[in-house]
Amino acid sequence: MTEPVRVFVTGGTFDKEYDELHGRLYFKDTHLPEMLKLARSRLEVRVQTLMMIDSLDMKDADRREVVESCRTCPEERIVVTHGTDTMAETARAILGAGLPKTVVLTGAMIPYAFGSSDGLFNLGSALSFAQVLPHGVWVAMNGRVFQGGRVRKNRETGVFEETA
Amino acid sequence: MTEPVRVFVTGGTFDKEYDELHGRLYFKDTHLPEMLKLARSRLEVRVQTLMMIDSLDMKDADRREVVESCRTCPEERIVVTHGTDTMAETARAILGAGLPKTVVLTGAMIPYAFGSSDGLFNLGSALSFAQVLPHGVWVAMNGRVFQGGRVRKNRETGVFEETA
Amino acid sequence: MTEPVRVFVTGGTFDKEYDELHGRLYFKDTHLPEMLKLARSRLEVRVQTLMMIDSLDMKDADRREVVESCRTCPEERIVVTHGTDTMAETARAILGAGLPKTVVLTGAMIPYAFGSSDGLFNLGSALSFAQVLPHGVWVAMNGRVFQGGRVRKNRETGVFEETA
Amino acid sequence: MTEPVRVFVTGGTFDKEYDELHGRLYFKDTHLPEMLKLARSRLEVRVQTLMMIDSLDMKDADRREVVESCRTCPEERIVVTHGTDTMAETARAILGAGLPKTVVLTGAMIPYAFGSSDGLFNLGSALSFAQVLPHGVWVAMNGRVFQGGRVRKNRETGVFEETA
Repeated sequence: MTEPVRVFVTGGTFDKEYDELHGRLYFKDTHLPEMLKLARSRLEVRVQTLMMIDSLDMKDADRREVVESCRTCPEERIVVTHGTDTMAETARAILGAGLPKTVVLTGAMIPYAFGSSDGLFNLGSALSFAQVLPHGVWVAMNGRVFQGGRVRKNRETGVFEETA
Repeated sequence: MTEPVRVFVTGGTFDKEYDELHGRLYFKDTHLPEMLKLARSRLEVRVQTLMMIDSLDMKDADRREVVESCRTCPEERIVVTHGTDTMAETARAILGAGLPKTVVLTGAMIPYAFGSSDGLFNLGSALSFAQVLPHGVWVAMNGRVFQGGRVRKNRETGVFEETA
Repeated sequence: MTEPVRVFVTGGTFDKEYDELHGRLYFKDTHLPEMLKLARSRLEVRVQTLMMIDSLDMKDADRREVVESCRTCPEERIVVTHGTDTMAETARAILGAGLPKTVVLTGAMIPYAFGSSDGLFNLGSALSFAQVLPHGVWVAMNGRVFQGGRVRKNRETGVFEETA
Repeated sequence: MTEPVRVFVTGGTFDKEYDELHGRLYFKDTHLPEMLKLARSRLEVRVQTLMMIDSLDMKDADRREVVESCRTCPEERIVVTHGTDTMAETARAILGAGLPKTVVLTGAMIPYAFGSSDGLFNLGSALSFAQVLPHGVWVAMNGRVFQGGRVRKNRETGVFEETA
């Protein structure tokens, strides 16, 4: 249970920041290292930023990059931080690759930089599921875990749900 | 994976607060419900406070109460929030009871009320491990998980370590 | 020095919140009462929301409402929370009314809801200046105070500066 | 109104931290520079730590050091951060020196490091009063300002009050 975990950062609400000059949200650097420090994480985690985008802006080429990064990294246990809006689509893309790995996608409803975020909880959850769940693609959000091919975000409530 | 999880609160750093009239730390109510709300947790969690004490003050009778509470609650999946100093002792006490349940102990190095706590991360981690690990007693701290009978807190570094 | 202070809320960065369903910034209710509670403020403060808008969207009619509210309220000491982009314009509008009152405008570069805001500091500053400065219109930002007719926001740096 | 302000740090609740190895409160370094940065303060402030102690532990020699520091520093406008329990005593000690300066004492009920502190508000308040109040000794707490010789902390309520 002490295998290293790879974390691929793709952006999403997790990493949004407030641009005080222009009064809008934007992406700068990932907060993952800061979050792991705050968490006093003792897990061997290797953080790598693939892109810093809103998941509504994620294109097929971006998804292919996520899939290929999961395929080629040496680690067997992987967490992907991702915007919530298209997390389920990316989960299905990774699922389609049939990798012999455990991949857990997670995100946040509130940016970490805004102080009262669900991100730290979700990160703790995703890193834990990644260590013990069998090979497959999983979505870990707000305490629950879903199979990658059987989950959707309810746009009205913002809540992830199991699909039939 | 949608079984309810029982959370037993025993106090510990997790729930310490600052008493502004007397300038010292103390216990009032648990922050668990507030933390689950912040986390937007969608897991069915049943929080029950057993005691609110520093784990250095935990006596044999207190440990017996924790063990009996784990034994008699209807849930099979349990998280126990606990001070870090004697968490390993309580883990061994629960282990001794040989319960057909998954019990995960967790805690924090920094009080949740102090804003920059590892508690939210650890709670996300413990609730996740509790859902998927097999029956047994486990300690989830700072991203890692240990078997209940094979863990100790290193008092010099504050870090949990595996024992032989 | 224990006269009541009127606080007029107009919105601005101070009160922006994160809309987790749509991933954008918006206005809901003012955070003033929460901020005063956190500050353990013992000053008699009467908070009144005039509008909740971005100061770039503030029109002449809105400015007239601010001026008339300052004129007609019974208090002689007034704080106006305001977006920073057109704070200087509103200061000049109030100045033009020649009121026998002390009016202090203040704001924030970072929303209070985002946890690491300059808003609480600026609010403490503005309420203090309002208690002791003579009649006139003042802008209190980031520890400094400016005369209402002699201040501008430098759009490149985001810093308020004295004008000739 | 752009004179530099000297800030003398003496410790107090303001600067208490949580010692995660021993589970108790202690003093390390002052948070003043971090607080001024968060506040985006544009005031010329010169921070100097005189001592880092609980004000209940402040002795006559410590008070003399505070008084002499106020006397000999080149600045005419001074803020002293101080524990609340004996802030009124130190105010009287400085008052006794009859300095031709404006000295404002301030503090906090909750440590800044604990995230939801009144300290940032009080600091904004004290720095503002220090810029505009006449020579004398003042106590700025929770939005109000008191004359140095006419204030006491009510130990039951924790609130500063005017004395006859």
